[in-house]
Amino acid sequence: SWKGAPEIKGEGGWSFKPRGRLQIDAASINPSDTIATNSLGTTARVRRAQFGIDGTIPGGFGYRVEADIGSGSAELTDMYLTYKANKELTITLGQHKPFWGLEELTSDLFTSFNERAAYHGAFGFERRVGLSATYAGKNVLLQGGIFADNAADLNGDGSNNSRSFDGRIVFMPKLGNTQLHLGASGHSRRFNDFSSTARYRARPFTRTTDTRFVDTRGFLANGEDSFGVEALASNGRFHASAESHWLTAKRIGAFADPTFNGGYAEVGYFLTKDSLAYKGGVVDRTKPSNPLGKGGIGAVQVNARYDWVDLSDDVIVGGKQQTYGLSLVWTPTEYVRFMANYGHLELTDAAVLAGGDGDYSADVFGMRAQIDF
Amino acid sequence: SWKGAPEIKGEGGWSFKPRGRLQIDAASINPSDTIATNSLGTTARVRRAQFGIDGTIPGGFGYRVEADIGSGSAELTDMYLTYKANKELTITLGQHKPFWGLEELTSDLFTSFNERAAYHGAFGFERRVGLSATYAGKNVLLQGGIFADNAADLNGDGSNNSRSFDGRIVFMPKLGNTQLHLGASGHSRRFNDFSSTARYRARPFTRTTDTRFVDTRGFLANGEDSFGVEALASNGRFHASAESHWLTAKRIGAFADPTFNGGYAEVGYFLTKDSLAYKGGVVDRTKPSNPLGKGGIGAVQVNARYDWVDLSDDVIVGGKQQTYGLSLVWTPTEYVRFMANYGHLELTDAAVLAGGDGDYSADVFGMRAQIDF
Amino acid sequence: SWKGAPEIKGEGGWSFKPRGRLQIDAASINPSDTIATNSLGTTARVRRAQFGIDGTIPGGFGYRVEADIGSGSAELTDMYLTYKANKELTITLGQHKPFWGLEELTSDLFTSFNERAAYHGAFGFERRVGLSATYAGKNVLLQGGIFADNAADLNGDGSNNSRSFDGRIVFMPKLGNTQLHLGASGHSRRFNDFSSTARYRARPFTRTTDTRFVDTRGFLANGEDSFGVEALASNGRFHASAESHWLTAKRIGAFADPTFNGGYAEVGYFLTKDSLAYKGGVVDRTKPSNPLGKGGIGAVQVNARYDWVDLSDDVIVGGKQQTYGLSLVWTPTEYVRFMANYGHLELTDAAVLAGGDGDYSADVFGMRAQIDF
Repeated sequence: SWKGAPEIKGEGGWSFKPRGRLQIDAASINPSDTIATNSLGTTARVRRAQFGIDGTIPGGFGYRVEADIGSGSAELTDMYLTYKANKELTITLGQHKPFWGLEELTSDLFTSFNERAAYHGAFGFERRVGLSATYAGKNVLLQGGIFADNAADLNGDGSNNSRSFDGRIVFMPKLGNTQLHLGASGHSRRFNDFSSTARYRARPFTRTTDTRFVDTRGFLANGEDSFGVEALASNGRFHASAESHWLTAKRIGAFADPTFNGGYAEVGYFLTKDSLAYKGGVVDRTKPSNPLGKGGIGAVQVNARYDWVDLSDDVIVGGKQQTYGLSLVWTPTEYVRFMANYGHLELTDAAVLAGGDGDYSADVFGMRAQIDF
Repeated sequence: SWKGAPEIKGEGGWSFKPRGRLQIDAASINPSDTIATNSLGTTARVRRAQFGIDGTIPGGFGYRVEADIGSGSAELTDMYLTYKANKELTITLGQHKPFWGLEELTSDLFTSFNERAAYHGAFGFERRVGLSATYAGKNVLLQGGIFADNAADLNGDGSNNSRSFDGRIVFMPKLGNTQLHLGASGHSRRFNDFSSTARYRARPFTRTTDTRFVDTRGFLANGEDSFGVEALASNGRFHASAESHWLTAKRIGAFADPTFNGGYAEVGYFLTKDSLAYKGGVVDRTKPSNPLGKGGIGAVQVNARYDWVDLSDDVIVGGKQQTYGLSLVWTPTEYVRFMANYGHLELTDAAVLAGGDGDYSADVFGMRAQIDF
Repeated sequence: SWKGAPEIKGEGGWSFKPRGRLQIDAASINPSDTIATNSLGTTARVRRAQFGIDGTIPGGFGYRVEADIGSGSAELTDMYLTYKANKELTITLGQHKPFWGLEELTSDLFTSFNERAAYHGAFGFERRVGLSATYAGKNVLLQGGIFADNAADLNGDGSNNSRSFDGRIVFMPKLGNTQLHLGASGHSRRFNDFSSTARYRARPFTRTTDTRFVDTRGFLANGEDSFGVEALASNGRFHASAESHWLTAKRIGAFADPTFNGGYAEVGYFLTKDSLAYKGGVVDRTKPSNPLGKGGIGAVQVNARYDWVDLSDDVIVGGKQQTYGLSLVWTPTEYVRFMANYGHLELTDAAVLAGGDGDYSADVFGMRAQIDF
């Protein structure tokens, strides 16, 4: 069968499918006042260039190996083996995402905006090497695991002993024609004993810059606990979704533990006769009802979003970033996607000053071309 | 079908083909007098080790993703998506070559010598992220685009705003049994505002050393304009080709803008009943008429070339390198190639001194074994 | 046909097969006294994440290209082309292993313990770019070649002129039901003129740490000669094997040349109705007679080993490490493997002190999950 690339099947349960994706971005960032940096303005970038393999092995085993080479080195993304104990229960061992929430677990191929909401980056959501179990029933999803650290931070020098427990529960009933999604996740992490620093910061709506307007700077901490809630409703051409996440950093010494918060609320609408694809607790691939090359123009979707992250609490003042965003997503055919998005950012007590002031605004415009296979 | 590797096709316009190449080099450099460096002499090297995918997607879309890992990191080579608007017109977005000229656009799998003429490296020809259009008619080829920078230099820190306009026109009529190729290309580039330095330098006929005898050293500049002409004629076992390129660096301040020049003139002859493959404005794969393993020995070609690059103009004295080269190319079967080449280099006003003098000569011998798929 | 991944064949001798492997490790190191380092304790790691291609080309040519990205960069592993002159004789050009011995040439997918015996790492066994010939008869194997250096150390700067001669001979008769293997290898290497330092050191039974208890530290040398012997006997569920290797470093100046030695002796037994696979001078893949998913549990093997490396000789005192190891290898199906191993290490005159003393012990426990294709 063909899923962007050919999926080759062998007798007894063998299968093999190459995977890959290419995302090319161009973006422009315009703050309301002068910022002393070279890293704003207009630029382009290969956002992601990934290669990988999905496979299954007789006996219930499977694997995914994938790396991103877009940045010039090889960053391991998904890199795990699975065992399907039965129809509902899957065990996963290796580098995968610790069940952070709806948008984080949704593939970056299918998000509504070029980048996920700011708190994802700010709170350090990433893949980690761990062991987890997923129970996927008809209307309920349960996920939990124990994780070490990102593969790049587990580089074989033996000095990393960080670990976390992560869990998520999702109810996903279909009520008439409405797909509902209600979930929550909890996370508790002990930092590496030999690297007891926390830092939270977020990029301004695009990954074409290294400047982060909001930034707590580093402070001593030995762990963090976090908690997220997530909801989505989708009916016909329309969908609405929202998430929020609270993270408490465990400071070392006689300091109060600060709690930071972020989230987003979004609505989206297809101008064409299409609807949001939803599957297994995440947003899935849009398959245009009238693709380009078959008499149609593909699927066209517009989305509006309010996105915030507040990195100030207690004596730590990292600043608050609020983004009012609009996006246009054109999916001419199933495995090709073009996106344009605009964000108006409001900064409060920002760590990077504009015109000497931590309160300012910025306008960001970004475009993306994407294929995957 | 099989093109080195299997090309798998699906219904509706899907296709998927793995790509790759392996080039293993050994070379020896012998200057006529003593040079104070460790980096000459005899050595070996994995010159290129590339993996990639070519694919097409229903609706007229296509892509190529490829990376070179021969140097230990992952260097992005071709990394683009295409849209075929009609039989003649193709739009390309992503990292590709800005239409520098015949030898640069010819795959490194099919060049007459182990390395391209010295001016290619000297003038910094490389792939860049950009958007371009190619019109390919029966006898004429038109290519033009706007480019940012190499993917590795667009690393997401947002500080790179360089851009260029690049265009090329080629006439490629077939007159009787003679394939002609006459072309010209023009290029205008504005450097990154935050990195206003130009430097032009060339390796001595081989990529197994980091020493460059000719070298302008860095100087302040904010852009460069360049112009190239190219010609080729191929008839039966014989071919002749020549190119020249002029590059003017735009110096900052009240300095005259220096113009550097390079080029080559080449003749080649097949000792076997084979001829140079030419397709779409570039040299293509040699398909031996009597390959090894089918009663023949494959294709054997000899080439002679004069290659020059002059990096001295105005007050900038980078030196001049002239190379008299001979090559032997053995293609036992279509996807396997062995090469040996010898170059006698004459250096004038070189930046690297030999025996205290900038005028000297050097002999370089190189070998290559190559497979691709 | 299917060999973990599909092998695609074309007319005339074409073939193409993707390759890859994923190994995920967790390990714990506990010395008998306090060691001042962050890099011991419990940690996890992606030990190997490799992708590659095996191919054949009409005319007798073949190739293997493969890279390991588990460490975040792209490390070239096998990267060579071959020419099969006849049924017995194969020429190999490119990066491959210089015929170090039985366990080194056995794929890391099929070793009895998570890591090879300590002397492999201590003596710097690695792949190198070279040209070699292998004669594989029914009962005898002859291998020899000339090698430059590892591809990563031949990085194109031209400063590496190290080279070695390496050879190996193996007798591998089958006497009744007993497979025998008796071999020897010899190696002579001249270091790079511009990097005349030798250093020998070994990790403690696991690759999840950068600490090496035994370590000669760097000393001036311009080459090394080494010699190894190897033996294996396999009958039904049982096997025994042993190797030893002597390495003499050629010191610069009026110093005696020290000789270091290492080796191992091992016995193994399958608890299930399986036996050690042996093919062409190396240990091969275990194919469980009753795999998981077909009514069985796969193959289960236990191994015991004594492993030593002595890096003290003459005035150089690098220390001696002896390891008493036990391993349990579970192969549920042909391409999936889980391992657990325990090692008790005895250190003498170690370079890293524990509680101020160079004589101590350590216990190491390691686990691995592995798939390949």
